[in-house]
Parts: sequence; C-alpha cells; structure tokens
Amino acid sequence: MTPVATARALGEKAQRMIDALTAISASPDHLTRLYLTPEHKRAAELVGEWMREAGLSTRLDAAGTMRGSMPPGRAGRSGNKALLIGSHIDTVINAGRYDGNLGVVVGILAVETLKARGVALPFGIDILAFGDEEGVRFPVTLTTSAVTAGVFDPKALDITDDADITLRDALIAFGGDPARLKEEAYQRPSVLGYLEVHIEQGPVLERAQEPLGVVTAIASQSRHRIRIKGEAGHAGTVPMNMRHDALAAAAEIILAIEAIAKKDKKNSLVATVGHVEVMPGASNVIPADVRFSLDVRAANDRARQEAVEAITLVARKVDKTRHVVVGVETMLEKPVATCGARLQKAIGKAVTTVQGEPARSLMSGAGHDGQSMAHLGEFGMIFVRCRAGISHNPAEFVTIDDMGLAVEALVETILELARQEEQP
Amino acid sequence: MTPVATARALGEKAQRMIDALTAISASPDHLTRLYLTPEHKRAAELVGEWMREAGLSTRLDAAGTMRGSMPPGRAGRSGNKALLIGSHIDTVINAGRYDGNLGVVVGILAVETLKARGVALPFGIDILAFGDEEGVRFPVTLTTSAVTAGVFDPKALDITDDADITLRDALIAFGGDPARLKEEAYQRPSVLGYLEVHIEQGPVLERAQEPLGVVTAIASQSRHRIRIKGEAGHAGTVPMNMRHDALAAAAEIILAIEAIAKKDKKNSLVATVGHVEVMPGASNVIPADVRFSLDVRAANDRARQEAVEAITLVARKVDKTRHVVVGVETMLEKPVATCGARLQKAIGKAVTTVQGEPARSLMSGAGHDGQSMAHLGEFGMIFVRCRAGISHNPAEFVTIDDMGLAVEALVETILELARQEEQP
Repeated sequence: MTPVATARALGEKAQRMIDALTAISASPDHLTRLYLTPEHKRAAELVGEWMREAGLSTRLDAAGTMRGSMPPGRAGRSGNKALLIGSHIDTVINAGRYDGNLGVVVGILAVETLKARGVALPFGIDILAFGDEEGVRFPVTLTTSAVTAGVFDPKALDITDDADITLRDALIAFGGDPARLKEEAYQRPSVLGYLEVHIEQGPVLERAQEPLGVVTAIASQSRHRIRIKGEAGHAGTVPMNMRHDALAAAAEIILAIEAIAKKDKKNSLVATVGHVEVMPGASNVIPADVRFSLDVRAANDRARQEAVEAITLVARKVDKTRHVVVGVETMLEKPVATCGARLQKAIGKAVTTVQGEPARSLMSGAGHDGQSMAHLGEFGMIFVRCRAGISHNPAEFVTIDDMGLAVEALVETILELARQEEQP
Repeated sequence: MTPVATARALGEKAQRMIDALTAISASPDHLTRLYLTPEHKRAAELVGEWMREAGLSTRLDAAGTMRGSMPPGRAGRSGNKALLIGSHIDTVINAGRYDGNLGVVVGILAVETLKARGVALPFGIDILAFGDEEGVRFPVTLTTSAVTAGVFDPKALDITDDADITLRDALIAFGGDPARLKEEAYQRPSVLGYLEVHIEQGPVLERAQEPLGVVTAIASQSRHRIRIKGEAGHAGTVPMNMRHDALAAAAEIILAIEAIAKKDKKNSLVATVGHVEVMPGASNVIPADVRFSLDVRAANDRARQEAVEAITLVARKVDKTRHVVVGVETMLEKPVATCGARLQKAIGKAVTTVQGEPARSLMSGAGHDGQSMAHLGEFGMIFVRCRAGISHNPAEFVTIDDMGLAVEALVETILELARQEEQP
C-alpha cells in the first residue's frame, strides 16, 4: 500500500473504495445490502482486507461487526484504552453509496494515513464496520452497535424478517453466535470514546457552502399517530355548518404542527407529517376518518416534549371546536444522544484547521450508531456535506474533495486527542 | 286493487313495494341494481305490473325506461299535455332501498290514489321509471332521462363498462334499440312539466323535524383536481425554514376552501375535499407531492364560480409564499338546474297542507334526472327526509309515515295543477 498524502489523493482513494463497496449488492440495478445477507458478508470481508492492509488485526464478531484493531503505539495517560471509530455497511433498499459506508472507509484511510506518517498514538484504535444501522431487514435498528455497547436486548433475537426468519437463525446462518453477543460488549473503562464520520443527509452544510460540520447531538425523537373521527356525508347535501369534516380538522392540526415547529428558533425543532390516510376517500364524500403520522425531533428532550404537548393541546381544541374525536398516540420515543463536549471541541478544532474556516455545529436529525455507543462514554461525529441533502436515494452524492477533507479532519481529531494525552 | 285511504296505509303499501324491489339485486347480500342488467329488467317488469294495476298502459322504451301512461280524464286548458312523474330504479353498489325507487313507487301510488278517489284530470300522466341515474355501470349519468328529454349524446353509445361491453351492445342485449333513442324524446309542447319525489340524501329536513321539503334547484356543480409539487426531504435533517412541504401547503388550501364555503350564507355553497393522496407517504419523509379533489356546489352558477375563483387565488398565493407549484384543474362543470316557479309554488302549497306546517325550500346538492328533464320545461321536486341524511348506504332509511305523506303531497300537487287548469 502506497502512502497517501494530499486531501485530493485521499478523496480519490475513498471514491475507489466506495465504488468497490457499491458493487456488492443484492441487486445488479441498485444498491441494497441488508444485515446478515451474503452481500453483508462479502462487504464485511472486503472491509476486513482493507483493515489488514492498513495494519489492523481483524475479526468478524458474534453479531457480524467487522472489527479492525491497532494497539497503542506508545504509553499515554489513558493506558490501554481504545478510541473506537466506526459506521455501518448495511444500506436501505435502493440506497445511496455514501450513507454509512463512507464512515468506515474514512476510518480505515485515517488509520492508514497516521501509519504512513509514522505517528505512534498513546491509545489503541478499533475500527468498527457495523452491520445493522438501518433496521431494514428486521424491524429493529442499531443491533450491531447495541451489541458492541452492551445494550442489546436479547428478546430481539426472536424478531423475524419478511421471510419469517428470526434474527437468531439469520445470525447463525451468517456465522455469528447469538450465545456470545453479551461477551462482545466493550467495558466502559477500556473505551476512550467513539468517533463517526457520516454524510449529513440534510441541506445545512451545502447551503452554508461548508464541507464539514461538528455534530452536537443526535436528535431527541418521537413518532406519533394522530387519528380523527368525523362524520361522513354527501358532498352535495350536507350544509357547511352541519359538517364534522375529519380532513378539515386534520388540516387545522397539520398547520398548527408546522407553526409550533417553526416558532422554535433554538432547539433545531422539526415536526413532520409524512403519511396521511383519508377515508372513505371519494371525491363526493365528506371525509369521516383521517389518520396521519407525526415525527418530532429536537436538539433536546424538553423542547421536543413541549412541542408534542403544544400539538396535543391543539388536537384537543380541534376535537372540541369541530365536534370530532381526535386521538394522539405515541409510538416511539428516543431521548437525545448528546455528543461529548471534549470530542465536539476536538472535532471543531480539526474541522476548522482542515477546511480553513470556522466549524459549524449542527444537530443530527437522523439516527446513528452513536446512540448505542453513547452508553460506552463520549461520542463525537463529523458530518460531511452531501448534494442537495439527498440521502437514502441513488442520487446521494459527496465530492471527492469533501471525502479527502473528511479523512484529514478525522486524522486531525485523532492527533488532537493524542495531544490531550500529553497534557498534565 | 283495494282503494287506499290514510297516509299510514299508503306508507305501508309503499314499504311493501320498496321491499319487493329491494329483493331484486345482483347480490343476495346487498342491493345492487345496475343499468341494463337482468336485475334492471326484472325491476322494470315489476314496476310495469304495478303501473298496469294502477290503470296505466305500459311500455319499456328503447332506452330501458318503463313508462306507464294515463290519458287525460277530461278536457282542460292544457289540451293533450302530459304531466311526467318519475325517478330511477337503478342503484349504486351496496345501495340503500329508497334512493330513486321511492320516487317511482310514490308516483304509482299517487295515480292509484287519484283513481281510487275518482278524480278526472285535465291532463295526462306518464310515470317514468328511469334505468340509469347513478351512472355506476357506465361512466355516464342520466342516460335514460337524457333520451326522454331528447338531449342524449349518441357518442355515449361507445362508452364501455368494466367488462368492456359498450352501452350500445348492452342496450341491444337488454332488448332496447340504440337506433330508436332519438324517437323516444318527448316534444316540449306536449309536456306539462316533470315532477319527482326523492329522498333528501342530506340532514336538513331531519334536523328541522319536517317530513317533506320543496326543492329550489339542483346545484351548480364543478369538480376540480388540485396538485401541489413541493420538495421531498428527510424528516429529521431538513430545518423547518428550508422546507417546501407539499402537505402543509395543501392543509393551508384545504382550510381556505372550508372558510370560503362557510362565508357564503345565501347560495347554499358547499365545497368538499374528499380524496387526498400524499406522496411519497412515509412518516419520515417530507411530502413532495399532494393531490386532492375539490367538489364545489351552489344554488347558482355565479356563486359557485366566484368560490372557485377565490380558491384559485388562495392556491396562487400558497404557490408563491411557500415556493411550491400549485395547479388547479377543472374536471367537470354542470350548470344549475332551477326548479320551475309554478311547480315550486304548487309543491309548497301541497306540502304545507299535507304536513301541517309551512314547507321548507332547499337546494338539492345531489344530481337528479330533473337535470335532463329541465330541457322539456318546468320541473319540480319533493324531498322526503331520510334518517341522518344517510344515502348510498344500506343504512338509508325513510319512515312509513313519511312515505305516506310523500304520496299525499304528490297527489295534492297534481290536484293543485289540475285546479290551475280551471282558472281563466
């Protein structure tokens, strides 16, 4: 392996590795790589090869995570701790090429770069290529990072995929070992922290014309189902003042949801109604029943909870004023995962150095393996801009230059953490 | 046939006739009787029998309308004119029992009552049992009444049903004659007017606790398709101020539609959004594309057109302020069919006499055969209250007493028109 030097060269190498991973798919037409499939195995093996070329010793763990380890190069304050660096190599169906995969590639290239520069680190590094961040095959997410962090719930082994295969059986068929998942957890004292490079999957960095950003937190999130029962009626024969139109009621709530989210200027609050069903759904019948989804995210739990409360109040008001029945149900609630202050600072310094302009801090509205890894200690994330904020889509795109900068920023972050080991 | 006397007895007879017609269905589980089917033929034949029992001479016309005729009983100012009385015996799928059928039954019972009372009328009466008001089998409505009124467009003969059978072939198989449709039209000078008894299909009479009402007009109606193109995005990663949410835009327009219709107090304006599609429709994706139907009706064309213009203005405003693309398309436009002043007055007098309280005037938001029959001269309609305004549904219900009152009101209307023949 030849030493790599410039950001451009690093970016080009990242692109070649991304291309090689993209070729490993369940479909010849598009990229789909689900957890514990033959594609997952092939991708993990390719990643393992790259890890070994970068000087790491590898093993596929009991949950299907490819781990590449490098011991400390010299003594340091943190003793035998390891800095964990990772992302995921599973994808959604008809996916983009960078989501997850880029983080694994950048991690390997960073270690390779450090090695090429002859840097001896005062801590070990473990690169982790997770196999299940997306939760597409089984209706559960972050399986592999939860195992790594010791927070995996073994009940999930009974969950089945569309072909009625349990997670347990799929794991055995893959060569994993359901009985050894607990042993695969890191112990908190052995972990220096967790770093992840990931595409932003949003438009903020592109809009700001900045290649990289520092993640402050993975959003607090909740999902709700709102159901409105009104009264059906003939579109021509029921006067306006006798109607209990479930859709008009829904429209009032949907607009209020938008207004409540827009009013918040400090907590990166976003609220989205994405799925709507209107029944009976005939153009000449007043809607009797409307159901819609609500997704609320914020940089902290309190802001999110307050927004949900405000939305629930509006729902109750509409229920009364329109004489319809409005129900708000909470389907899922995930607390915020805040990035460690020390890692945010180190990443901020590194990104500022590498991109030549002050690093922007931003929330991650999407979920990431860091939500599991937070259980082992501090975690930090570097966001890379992607074109038009598009992700989970073949149009997902990151420039070669930005990928090169991402490798350099990760290298600088690692060096900054190493410097901190020297300080008294 | 025994003479019938009280309203209650008339209602009971109407109920027995309704029950007999309900038994004639394409399905043993529910009532479905489509145009030019064996069920239509059997129902027309049963109606023909009743007509003959009531002293009418019958024939099934070339379009499948069962006609029962009675010549004038004595000379009068109107000479050889005929008063046409009708409704339809086709139904929607999984229909109620009264929609259409009640009007035919009430017409026959009114003639029978007049005969039992020994009344000699100064005009003829033709009872018309139309076969296609609903337009369920073929995508065209009012076929039979359009033929009767001479406004049938022969191009419609090429229209096909779901089994790819043309209206022409279905008509021939039924025993009709596509070549003779034109001859089946009444000549305007031979028609005194058209009367129809029909269930309200709305809640106004029930709310007012009045059995019967006078129809002022069949609403001016238009149907539109509104389409909003916004921008998809991840529900967690696109800040509120960067969104072009097609659903939030739709909600704004839907609320404005409701407000515009509610503001009108004079023209019975109603506007309904009944069908909505939200795409891509995932709970974690900002809606990119929303399409919805708009149905607008009013007691006059101008009020309806002004409402559509106001809605279009709101759509344009939303297009601009939200940076989405809003399109408003008109799919159908039907002018108002106003009931004749003379017939409204005669019906109003009759209804007031029969129900013992002043007759309420109301618009018909639903379409009826009167829209065709208006081409032959004045038409008038008597509405009968139905439970909860429910129609096009097996739960459709009219009380026996109300049916009896409807027969009496039609009899009184006919007698009032006969009295008018005496006046100089």
